[in-house]
Amino acid sequence: MAQESYSGSRRLAAEALGTFFLLATVVGSGIMGENLAGGNAAIALLGNTIATGAILAVLILVFGPISGAHFNPAVTLAFLLRREIKGGEALLFVGAQLLGGLLGMLAAHAMFELPLLQASSHARGGGAQWFSEFIATFGLVATILGCLRVRAEAIPYAVGLYITAGYWFTVSTSFANPAVTIARSFTDTFSGILPAHAPAFILAQLLGAATATLVFAWFGSNKPGSR
Amino acid sequence: MAQESYSGSRRLAAEALGTFFLLATVVGSGIMGENLAGGNAAIALLGNTIATGAILAVLILVFGPISGAHFNPAVTLAFLLRREIKGGEALLFVGAQLLGGLLGMLAAHAMFELPLLQASSHARGGGAQWFSEFIATFGLVATILGCLRVRAEAIPYAVGLYITAGYWFTVSTSFANPAVTIARSFTDTFSGILPAHAPAFILAQLLGAATATLVFAWFGSNKPGSR
Amino acid sequence: MAQESYSGSRRLAAEALGTFFLLATVVGSGIMGENLAGGNAAIALLGNTIATGAILAVLILVFGPISGAHFNPAVTLAFLLRREIKGGEALLFVGAQLLGGLLGMLAAHAMFELPLLQASSHARGGGAQWFSEFIATFGLVATILGCLRVRAEAIPYAVGLYITAGYWFTVSTSFANPAVTIARSFTDTFSGILPAHAPAFILAQLLGAATATLVFAWFGSNKPGSR
Amino acid sequence: MAQESYSGSRRLAAEALGTFFLLATVVGSGIMGENLAGGNAAIALLGNTIATGAILAVLILVFGPISGAHFNPAVTLAFLLRREIKGGEALLFVGAQLLGGLLGMLAAHAMFELPLLQASSHARGGGAQWFSEFIATFGLVATILGCLRVRAEAIPYAVGLYITAGYWFTVSTSFANPAVTIARSFTDTFSGILPAHAPAFILAQLLGAATATLVFAWFGSNKPGSR
Repeated sequence: MAQESYSGSRRLAAEALGTFFLLATVVGSGIMGENLAGGNAAIALLGNTIATGAILAVLILVFGPISGAHFNPAVTLAFLLRREIKGGEALLFVGAQLLGGLLGMLAAHAMFELPLLQASSHARGGGAQWFSEFIATFGLVATILGCLRVRAEAIPYAVGLYITAGYWFTVSTSFANPAVTIARSFTDTFSGILPAHAPAFILAQLLGAATATLVFAWFGSNKPGSR
Repeated sequence: MAQESYSGSRRLAAEALGTFFLLATVVGSGIMGENLAGGNAAIALLGNTIATGAILAVLILVFGPISGAHFNPAVTLAFLLRREIKGGEALLFVGAQLLGGLLGMLAAHAMFELPLLQASSHARGGGAQWFSEFIATFGLVATILGCLRVRAEAIPYAVGLYITAGYWFTVSTSFANPAVTIARSFTDTFSGILPAHAPAFILAQLLGAATATLVFAWFGSNKPGSR
Repeated sequence: MAQESYSGSRRLAAEALGTFFLLATVVGSGIMGENLAGGNAAIALLGNTIATGAILAVLILVFGPISGAHFNPAVTLAFLLRREIKGGEALLFVGAQLLGGLLGMLAAHAMFELPLLQASSHARGGGAQWFSEFIATFGLVATILGCLRVRAEAIPYAVGLYITAGYWFTVSTSFANPAVTIARSFTDTFSGILPAHAPAFILAQLLGAATATLVFAWFGSNKPGSR
Repeated sequence: MAQESYSGSRRLAAEALGTFFLLATVVGSGIMGENLAGGNAAIALLGNTIATGAILAVLILVFGPISGAHFNPAVTLAFLLRREIKGGEALLFVGAQLLGGLLGMLAAHAMFELPLLQASSHARGGGAQWFSEFIATFGLVATILGCLRVRAEAIPYAVGLYITAGYWFTVSTSFANPAVTIARSFTDTFSGILPAHAPAFILAQLLGAATATLVFAWFGSNKPGSR
């Protein structure tokens, strides 16, 4: 993505700012949906979906050229496994994502005049949920690595569209992102997750990301002409 | 699409993996919609539509450069009639699509903690349904072949948008795909079809695909300057 | 659009086939929406909107390179005023659009097992409706001519998005097309219009198209460097 | 954007016409949503959102090459701070935006047969609302300036998608535009704002725009190779 020419501080600021807006949108649009939908959870999820898919495309368009627009420790892990980011910077990226995500979640609470500090009571445990997060994150990383091979310019739209689908086809609504999972454990609103259920989500997400990286290494290792 | 340089195993894996995610999304988002929509079928269909249209664009972006991203025996038939795929590989493609589709449907059941093995009780028989599937598949193949002539890079978005419309303008909600039809006969949820009604759907789909191939052969045979 | 190298019969077939799918979608998705929405007209209109906007983008991608993808006598009038289509072919275009539109409306009735021949009882008369159609068609032609000046490749998406907005911001839901208006006067479903109210719609549409053509002639006459 | 070769009158007409259609859509689709949604505010907001996001993309595609497609005094302020527009023309732009916006709001009233002159009774006061408008406008200007650095051709879609998200993730529904705020203070419908609450919105919007301009000056000042 040719973003390497940017200084480390600008790259970290891009990761933090992008994850800030991502969480503000995920949490904020969930609150808005729940406030307005009159108890119909599908209508609330429609608003949550449209807002999240749209902001992801925007944020990757805006910050992709600066930092690569990971906003997600599982994506950073994939690029670490591909040796496209160094271990030290990967750690800083994850720190920036966690910080930005927590601040974005707090901003959503502030915008909707809710208590800033909350803990979610939304249980999302069990094997079906973990399988959902594995599939969801496998698909997200497959989307990024698949597009990266031949049409990187489509990644912003592809990721926005993928999460649009993910909110509906997985029972967990596709968190697919450890920074998002941690931030969402601190909001007792539509998009929350019980803090005790977060670690298993994160483990399933990292496994999904690593598996997709392996699969696309196999796809990618076959160059034109080597059939 | 210049995907010919990939080995057969990678091409078959791309067809299977793409059809897996397509069916996981079609079936999974149908279940999610029905679970949340409080009995309003239009709201359930909106969620089903948005998820399916979005994942189709993503999957064709990701797997198009590897296998051509058919995910659909009717599309493979169209390319066979155009002699752009050989008979032997076409058969293998259809096998990969069927396998991937069935596994994707099972994955949706697993994610939503439903019995893995089901048979649909959703009747979709009669001439109006068959006419709908003929029109739906004619339009799908026309979309692909029409874009292929001058702007192949738009195909992922065009196919996603076409099925978005198809879910609403045909009474059958545009299955338009024999692999999807077979997999959906094994789910007794929102998107299912009574197994006994599947064969007529598949016949109508193949006729629609063949007719569109003929029509676009006529459109395509007129080269610039030959008016 | 470089479509001039196609023979007249292929161009007319493209206009007819495109207008067929446009009307099948407008009428069909209106019926689907009304059938499923449980009396909530906004939900029915959402389905109708998404389907119509999506199919318009697809149809212009597919048929634009062949015929220019007018599907609309008001658009053909705009190109006639700009002398980009000859009078004789313009008349044939309008004939193909009317024929395709009527057949598409009949196909929607057949798909939903409704009587093929109907007359709408949906009153859409009065100055507010006519003003809406003038604004709607002015905006549609402005969208096409505005994009044509510098980024013609965006027209399919721009027209789909414009009608998506038009369904909601005009009280008439933006017919913006005489062929669509005539076909919709023959369906007594969600999207219908009382036949007696069609002529005033068509007059307002042609005035809107002509006005937009004049305004964009003024914008377009100022070449770079002439400030 | 290379629009400088257009004469001042054409540039002002583009700003007025674009802001006209923007307000006609924001106000008109709000009225349509409220009329049809049967009291479910989330469904009304979905229609309002889809229409506004779609028309923004269209209007920037159409008028961007002529005037830059600001339609927004906060955006004009950002370009003034970047010295990409002169003070005199900036003032004229703001005048054209205000005039176009007010006429667009009146057109929406006319299309829906409402009294032309109204004052909103919709209270939107307090710190949470002001913080929302600061965040909303920061994000809007970040979207424009971020895309402008490397992929200006994506701006129409990015802005449409950003406002799509903004309608849901901010409690104020992201006015993010002083011309829109003033026009919306004169409509007592879904999208209105109590006139007394408009000035604080406008101040928050201008602060958000100026802050984003500063942040992106910092991002942008680091040229490739200077790491």
